[in-house]
Amino acid sequence: MNTDIVFFQLFEPESSTYTYIIGDKKSKNAAIIDPVIETIERDLNFLKELDLNLRYIFDTHVHADHITSAGMLREKLGAKTGVSSGAGVQCVDINIEDGQEFLLGDKKIKAVATPGHTDSCMSYYFEGVVFTGDTLLIRGCGRTDFQQGSTEKLFHSVREKLFKLPDHTIVYPAHDYKGFTSSTIELEKKYNPRLKLENDYETFKKIMDELKLAYPKKIDASLPANIKCGLGLNLPSFKANINNGIPEISCEELNAVMKKGNPKFQLIDVRGSDEFTGELSHIEGAKLKTLGPELSKFLKELNRDTEIVFVCRSGARSANSTNEAKELGFKNIYNLTGGMLRWNELKYNIVK
Amino acid sequence: MNTDIVFFQLFEPESSTYTYIIGDKKSKNAAIIDPVIETIERDLNFLKELDLNLRYIFDTHVHADHITSAGMLREKLGAKTGVSSGAGVQCVDINIEDGQEFLLGDKKIKAVATPGHTDSCMSYYFEGVVFTGDTLLIRGCGRTDFQQGSTEKLFHSVREKLFKLPDHTIVYPAHDYKGFTSSTIELEKKYNPRLKLENDYETFKKIMDELKLAYPKKIDASLPANIKCGLGLNLPSFKANINNGIPEISCEELNAVMKKGNPKFQLIDVRGSDEFTGELSHIEGAKLKTLGPELSKFLKELNRDTEIVFVCRSGARSANSTNEAKELGFKNIYNLTGGMLRWNELKYNIVK
Repeated sequence: MNTDIVFFQLFEPESSTYTYIIGDKKSKNAAIIDPVIETIERDLNFLKELDLNLRYIFDTHVHADHITSAGMLREKLGAKTGVSSGAGVQCVDINIEDGQEFLLGDKKIKAVATPGHTDSCMSYYFEGVVFTGDTLLIRGCGRTDFQQGSTEKLFHSVREKLFKLPDHTIVYPAHDYKGFTSSTIELEKKYNPRLKLENDYETFKKIMDELKLAYPKKIDASLPANIKCGLGLNLPSFKANINNGIPEISCEELNAVMKKGNPKFQLIDVRGSDEFTGELSHIEGAKLKTLGPELSKFLKELNRDTEIVFVCRSGARSANSTNEAKELGFKNIYNLTGGMLRWNELKYNIVK
Repeated sequence: MNTDIVFFQLFEPESSTYTYIIGDKKSKNAAIIDPVIETIERDLNFLKELDLNLRYIFDTHVHADHITSAGMLREKLGAKTGVSSGAGVQCVDINIEDGQEFLLGDKKIKAVATPGHTDSCMSYYFEGVVFTGDTLLIRGCGRTDFQQGSTEKLFHSVREKLFKLPDHTIVYPAHDYKGFTSSTIELEKKYNPRLKLENDYETFKKIMDELKLAYPKKIDASLPANIKCGLGLNLPSFKANINNGIPEISCEELNAVMKKGNPKFQLIDVRGSDEFTGELSHIEGAKLKTLGPELSKFLKELNRDTEIVFVCRSGARSANSTNEAKELGFKNIYNLTGGMLRWNELKYNIVK
């Protein structure tokens, strides 16, 4: 393989998104394509290890299924963000036009407008590979039934632009759901069930019209966030499991988030004051609000957007507390499973 | 990228396994490394599309976390299977020795013995890339606490063999759990938290000794199966969802499995005989065993290993039937959710 370029493909499993890091080994100039907010820490760490000068952060389009980390990466690394000029994303640095070129050392990325999935989808060609976003997927393509999607434009983009690239061009899409990581233009011309050369436009249109896909789960959160480059978000601190309707987190997860510092949440200990200072002690930063009138009064006066983790001895009283908060209309609340018993078992820090 | 070779990486999400297809474009000779039984149809179809002459089917070791499709691929495609001579897999065609070479056109695969995760782990070097199995993972390594694993051998294999490859050699492991798809020898030398050059053997050993990993979920099924090249297995026809303790499958899944032909399961319709021939009719091949004494008698006399799909009008009576069979000790039984109502809605074949 060409040892002169940097190329890494990364996967984010929740939205099945591929993120790409490409660069020129000599100058160390690099770009990242379609980074995802869920994996920003992995990607920041990886970019640091790779010792690259990140110049560009490109999105292939305004995504409906995940939030871009473009804005946050720019804040941390100073690279320029770019998306198609037609996307209307005011916060980006570069409104990319069809055919625009970007240098990484002596190598260039060329933007290729490929509307259809959205009206402003942009593919990127680099050194024999093409990043096709949601325009051309491996043996598939993006849907065209919302976000100014157009079956006709997508057909034209694939047939007149992507399929005009050399046959051996490697295709790297923004998603895959079947475990494929790459394809080639030749394979898609032959075997893409929707867009292969033997299909005419009417056949393609019929396939797309009959898809009847469900409304994307994350679109209502993703689109407004992505129009703002994924910035100014108030993301929850935890990913909870729901147990009998009650959101739960583990001691391991709480400890991991606390170690990062600057917690946004309140940690409420609902035990009695004797237990709070007793054998099991309490977690640093925890506020004592004993289950009963004291906790109820506290919760009623609190802004319902406040994130709260409830803790007790074993996780039972804190589950009741979480439920009480839920009924009061709190959204971002969590029961700490296992409570102080588990916390102590794991030898995490307590107030001595 | 080098357009002279064929290279595809494929992912199997259940065991997070990477399968690789490599080949020589001119001669079309190819090999597959670490194929997984769950994805054999995808892989067979893909190999056919790629129009390759599959010569070799290699496993990097006797896997404990998934079943190899090596034996089945050989049956279908006639390629030779190979695994390290030390693995004691009697059914393979080639007992591979350290340093052995295999030609794909004018390109060669070189076997590199890298024991440690198991005593017979084999890496494969091909055209600037190395397939490291579970010996070297991206920022990690395989466990060494069973299957004749040896911390000392693994350390030696990585340091004295893999880390002696050129720095820019691309590392493709058998697994990744964080969304990485590749690394390089240089990156692992610097950043592998266990095996980086700055760690001495004692540091590595301490890390490995403290891992305290759980016993692998699938080992008891995988090892015996893999010793037989993944052949002679009696795999269930369906992947069921469990709903209130009852295994369920959808009409879509039943239809997909039936379309493949040669069903191994019995399809038992538990409605009344009037319904069986009524407006909704029944699925071809279904046996009528009405819920009640008729079904109970039938089940009691049946071998408990028999796979059964139960169907009724809406899925309620068939759920009860599935439960009855479960209590009788049947293991591979499934309730068809939605029943004939859903089946008809999807316009699948019924007996006219």
